Amino acid sequence: MLIDGLQYCNWSRGIFEDMRAGGVGCVHVTVSYWEDFRATAARIADWHRRFERHADLITHGRTAADVRRAAREGRTAIVFGFQNCSPIDDDFGLVQVLHELGGRFMQLTYNNQSPLATGCYETEDAGVTRFGRQVIAEMNRVGMVVDMSHSAERSTLDAIEISTRPIAITHANAAVWEPALRNKSDTVLAALAGSGGMLGFSLYPHHLVAKSDCRLEDFCAMVARTAEIMGVAHIGIGSDLVQGHPDSVAHWMRNGRWARETDYGEGDASRAGWPAQPEWFASNRDFGNIARGLAEVGFAADEVARIMGGNWLDFFEASFGPAS
Amino acid sequence: MLIDGLQYCNWSRGIFEDMRAGGVGCVHVTVSYWEDFRATAARIADWHRRFERHADLITHGRTAADVRRAAREGRTAIVFGFQNCSPIDDDFGLVQVLHELGGRFMQLTYNNQSPLATGCYETEDAGVTRFGRQVIAEMNRVGMVVDMSHSAERSTLDAIEISTRPIAITHANAAVWEPALRNKSDTVLAALAGSGGMLGFSLYPHHLVAKSDCRLEDFCAMVARTAEIMGVAHIGIGSDLVQGHPDSVAHWMRNGRWARETDYGEGDASRAGWPAQPEWFASNRDFGNIARGLAEVGFAADEVARIMGGNWLDFFEASFGPAS
Repeated sequence: MLIDGLQYCNWSRGIFEDMRAGGVGCVHVTVSYWEDFRATAARIADWHRRFERHADLITHGRTAADVRRAAREGRTAIVFGFQNCSPIDDDFGLVQVLHELGGRFMQLTYNNQSPLATGCYETEDAGVTRFGRQVIAEMNRVGMVVDMSHSAERSTLDAIEISTRPIAITHANAAVWEPALRNKSDTVLAALAGSGGMLGFSLYPHHLVAKSDCRLEDFCAMVARTAEIMGVAHIGIGSDLVQGHPDSVAHWMRNGRWARETDYGEGDASRAGWPAQPEWFASNRDFGNIARGLAEVGFAADEVARIMGGNWLDFFEASFGPAS
Repeated sequence: MLIDGLQYCNWSRGIFEDMRAGGVGCVHVTVSYWEDFRATAARIADWHRRFERHADLITHGRTAADVRRAAREGRTAIVFGFQNCSPIDDDFGLVQVLHELGGRFMQLTYNNQSPLATGCYETEDAGVTRFGRQVIAEMNRVGMVVDMSHSAERSTLDAIEISTRPIAITHANAAVWEPALRNKSDTVLAALAGSGGMLGFSLYPHHLVAKSDCRLEDFCAMVARTAEIMGVAHIGIGSDLVQGHPDSVAHWMRNGRWARETDYGEGDASRAGWPAQPEWFASNRDFGNIARGLAEVGFAADEVARIMGGNWLDFFEASFGPAS
């Protein structure tokens, strides 16, 4: 079972065909960044149309059982998530509403301070807020995973401690390997694994050593080093694959409605658009390269299978239903 | 199985206790009148809190199986519905979104013209609109019942014809008995039954002969006469019970945000508030009076059981899932 812990593409039949050609059993897709609840509902309705039109290729994934069923049917299960708390409109009651609509991951922040916690681009991090604690408790109750991929260090450590269920960092790498603001310290990675959480390794060039020129063996060596800190059971892939979007979407993701001046995120004015993917991971057809690279740095076959999806499936099984 | 096809109360533990004391197995509750999608989501979140706090008395009913399960558990199943199309924000894609949140009935109109059809208080009725046809098709596809309780005659006949699945008039009586604008002609009642649809008889005083002074035997005689037109398989109860709301809520239901001048609905300036219920149907504890009255006008025991809920349960079974 091959599972990708995060993608945000300009969805099309071609991309879904790539998923099938690449043997991708499940993808956690980003439904919203800055969208409020109403706009998120419209994005979910867009997915309902895709599920109708491409029913031969994809299906909605609400549970681990859905993911296994999809695999038997030769379809890719699509799991919904949100990269920010904007979809809940400052209303904790919308956590359950969004869970009923299929939301299974929500980041407490997207780069900036939110009412819940601090984003990874802020200079000050006061940790998880009063409202943040309420929302984490509600996410724990209904079975929506706290995702701290775009959050700052103290907030992330707080969330790991406050959450009564394991959390995730769906798409990031080790900061010791590449010191991007989005990558995570060994302290965070160890705490995440210690609480039963999951890390998805990112293939987004700004999170990679040498960016678009990153070599497969360097990426896989970083995975191996991280496995020594976290254990093989707590790591997977969260490619952060972006395909088919114009550069205007990168601008929107970074600036939403909050910035008059342009914020370039991990790029800069001379590299404002989407960076090129490493040649060994250009689309959903290329997960086999990663699996091969992992074997070459010494992972056993069963370990490769766990990293490429088995761990995520176990995590979905434990995480997507109501607290028992 | 005792099922009520419509209520809109100021929900409280006392009312849920009444439901249990009255042996009410299921109630279709109105979630929205004039609320848009966002406000409807907040009303649904309110219900989630009620399901948590009163889990010993009520539970969410999404399917006929849920209703049967609730009965085994000694709880009342609550089915969600909307008395207007305002929750879909002119976006047909929200029909499925609302279905996923538990919406099982939606009126195409609430008294006034809507983008979908004509309400029963308008003087001109041009029937189901272009958008209305699209929404009916979508409701048919996902399993949300078209409810024409507050719609005008031609629009109702159109909806019966256009819908590929049986529709409902969840709360109304025979106009020949009491000529309220909300009650339905024999033409409509016959067409409704002819297409497999359901009528729920209303206990709202403005829909009754002699209003608050209506006698149980007169109500039951109207049921018997209607059964001759529609057949016993197509009738049930839709009490339209309103309890605990201040008169300001009656004003809001009638005027929403559309009227600067006060519209009194079926009342008038001298009777602007809630009418008193007939003494034989004052709360959820009183359904037994209706069952007894039906037996007294000559219905057999199995017919009484069907009218008091069995027919609704069969209708839910056939109606609440995706089109096959």
